[in-house]
Amino acid sequence: MRAGGAARACRGACRRWLSGCAGPADGPGQPAASARAVDCQALLDLCRRRHFLSGAPQQLSAAALLGGGRPRCGPLGVELRKNLASQWWDSMVVFREQVFAVDALHHEAGPSQPGDSAFRLVSPECIRELLQDKELSKEQLVAFLEKLLKTSGKLRETLLHGALEHYPNCLDLVNRRLPYGLAQIGVCFHPVLDTQQIPNSVKRIGEKTEASLVWFTPPKTSNQWLDFWLRHRLLWWRKGRDGRKNVVPCVLSVSGDLDLGVLAYLCDSFQLTENSFARKKSLQRKVLKLHPCLAPVKVALDVGKGPTVELRQVCQGLLNELRENGVSVWPGYLETMHSSLEQLFSKYDEMSILFTVLITETTLENGLIQLRSRDTTMKETMHISQLKDFLVKYLRSAKNV
Amino acid sequence: MRAGGAARACRGACRRWLSGCAGPADGPGQPAASARAVDCQALLDLCRRRHFLSGAPQQLSAAALLGGGRPRCGPLGVELRKNLASQWWDSMVVFREQVFAVDALHHEAGPSQPGDSAFRLVSPECIRELLQDKELSKEQLVAFLEKLLKTSGKLRETLLHGALEHYPNCLDLVNRRLPYGLAQIGVCFHPVLDTQQIPNSVKRIGEKTEASLVWFTPPKTSNQWLDFWLRHRLLWWRKGRDGRKNVVPCVLSVSGDLDLGVLAYLCDSFQLTENSFARKKSLQRKVLKLHPCLAPVKVALDVGKGPTVELRQVCQGLLNELRENGVSVWPGYLETMHSSLEQLFSKYDEMSILFTVLITETTLENGLIQLRSRDTTMKETMHISQLKDFLVKYLRSAKNV
Repeated sequence: MRAGGAARACRGACRRWLSGCAGPADGPGQPAASARAVDCQALLDLCRRRHFLSGAPQQLSAAALLGGGRPRCGPLGVELRKNLASQWWDSMVVFREQVFAVDALHHEAGPSQPGDSAFRLVSPECIRELLQDKELSKEQLVAFLEKLLKTSGKLRETLLHGALEHYPNCLDLVNRRLPYGLAQIGVCFHPVLDTQQIPNSVKRIGEKTEASLVWFTPPKTSNQWLDFWLRHRLLWWRKGRDGRKNVVPCVLSVSGDLDLGVLAYLCDSFQLTENSFARKKSLQRKVLKLHPCLAPVKVALDVGKGPTVELRQVCQGLLNELRENGVSVWPGYLETMHSSLEQLFSKYDEMSILFTVLITETTLENGLIQLRSRDTTMKETMHISQLKDFLVKYLRSAKNV
Repeated sequence: MRAGGAARACRGACRRWLSGCAGPADGPGQPAASARAVDCQALLDLCRRRHFLSGAPQQLSAAALLGGGRPRCGPLGVELRKNLASQWWDSMVVFREQVFAVDALHHEAGPSQPGDSAFRLVSPECIRELLQDKELSKEQLVAFLEKLLKTSGKLRETLLHGALEHYPNCLDLVNRRLPYGLAQIGVCFHPVLDTQQIPNSVKRIGEKTEASLVWFTPPKTSNQWLDFWLRHRLLWWRKGRDGRKNVVPCVLSVSGDLDLGVLAYLCDSFQLTENSFARKKSLQRKVLKLHPCLAPVKVALDVGKGPTVELRQVCQGLLNELRENGVSVWPGYLETMHSSLEQLFSKYDEMSILFTVLITETTLENGLIQLRSRDTTMKETMHISQLKDFLVKYLRSAKNV
């Protein structure tokens, strides 16, 4: 019922970006591809080091990703995906009338279609009982396995089924008047084909986070709605988001793969630039320029020279004020290992933190703080009382662009 | 490693509240219990009618819930659970340093312990292959089943395992310094014992949404931290939230069952009062008095007499303004079926909507709107330009109580 339109396009973007890396065609005749290969490994290293992605180094190689492996998210990646999901949710649900949130189960109860390839859910007790019964004939065992295939529940592979199930109930909410939509974000399961090192009776299970809007419309307006969602999807794409769409008569299903979205955004935002401050010319500045709405952490608070206890108290107060206003903060002042400002900035650039705030003894004297921007690398001085409003306004205007 | 402390207490609350309903001990000698039984069925009907819970009437009976059945959430229930989860998340993660979000897989790869009762995940292809092989001996089938038990992956039953898995990686984020914590909200799976009407080889699978904080501390401070989390949990309880805690040396695990939380809040907030306006004395006013932070919808917009197009435009503008400020709105003005104001208010009371705003032709003349409160049932007149600030302030102060 659905084809992988944009998910495929998105996967394409990751693949294009990964292309050239670790591929057998790489050679001295392809300097561009070879430069990309360096970029690619640099980004993967950065993502692992800064906890956007998690996993062993061999799982996070370009080769593994090209082979269809899905990296898992680390804490910063989880926040990035959450921000992406909330952008999607705002656009699809919050600012739209007649779209409701549903929550379907991760599994569907049996019976299953005989040809269905979805993973079956089996209670181990029933197999154990069987194994203890020494009298059992081969025919009985075969019959048991056949019944197991037919009757056991299975893991969901898309969110579409759950939405269709909620359709009749939710029709009441709109007084049985179409059109209306059902939205859900959740994990779906799929078999992974790569079976190296795994006994062939067991297939690996992949998990992905899907965002889905299912739109129910009367047949006669389904064409207009298709146009509407196509336009809407184009606007999405222009904003750099991902989604895909597909039509079954009277039911439009718009869905996106948020995990692939996370990867695509990490790829798009990675920048390597010459570092004018570095003594070695070969040292490059690595920055993840995620969109302000998507960046997992918006601001880092750090202390410079001065009385430790007082400076920390200022930081603590600022942290609470900013968090109460919805600005996520990295408490750099808790760090006990000393690093130079340059090291600090390059760490935060890699973490995609928009601003670094430096509280020093000057702050205690006259309330002035230093604010350093990820995108311009410029530093400016600001009064501490203006910081919250500046950040809130900055984030709000970034949202509206 | 963990016992079901508060989850059990929470289940107890639901059970106490359900007690007396539909039980065999019910009789004319127990008027209180019988009155409760009416309440109970009234609440369940309300929850279904207003889409807090979803399911067939027989699944939403007191007897089914007492039998361990878990009702599923409808659209309003999904929003309520989301609000509850965000309260938990704010308290455990956002306003706390050194707590990071993790995201573990819903399944754990094999091999499994032989005695493990978690549901196994089986690829149907491998069973099909076996069934097509006519030469197979009974011993080979038994060996296959034994291998299936040992090697297949399984569905997670708690979130603890995933947090422990992320422990070494995330230690880097805090420069290998304890204490720190890992938080996650996600679905866990458990076998359901009720097996009526289901072939005995297949057990039913239950899903529940768990919120978990796993706190890693050095052994010497683990006692202080235990005290801290105990106090914190007591404060939680006083605020009417749920959570449970438990200790393995140096690892504190605080977790709550959000689905049971939703049920407990629905129970606590249900009020039946005499309706002074109703002509029939037997007619009672049914209200769900959910806490303002938890109520899925904060305000409903409706239109009274006046020019339809203009009134709708006013509503549309107000809706966008309120949603941009994070206030969830019910677009009652889209309703084409006429209902009296009284019917409207009683519908919104059942939906736990805090305020109803009425836009009429007066609004077009002088900007005045009518605001009716769920909790006081009082109506007041207000200028439309003041509404947003009033609601934002109201919700903010409700948060701080």
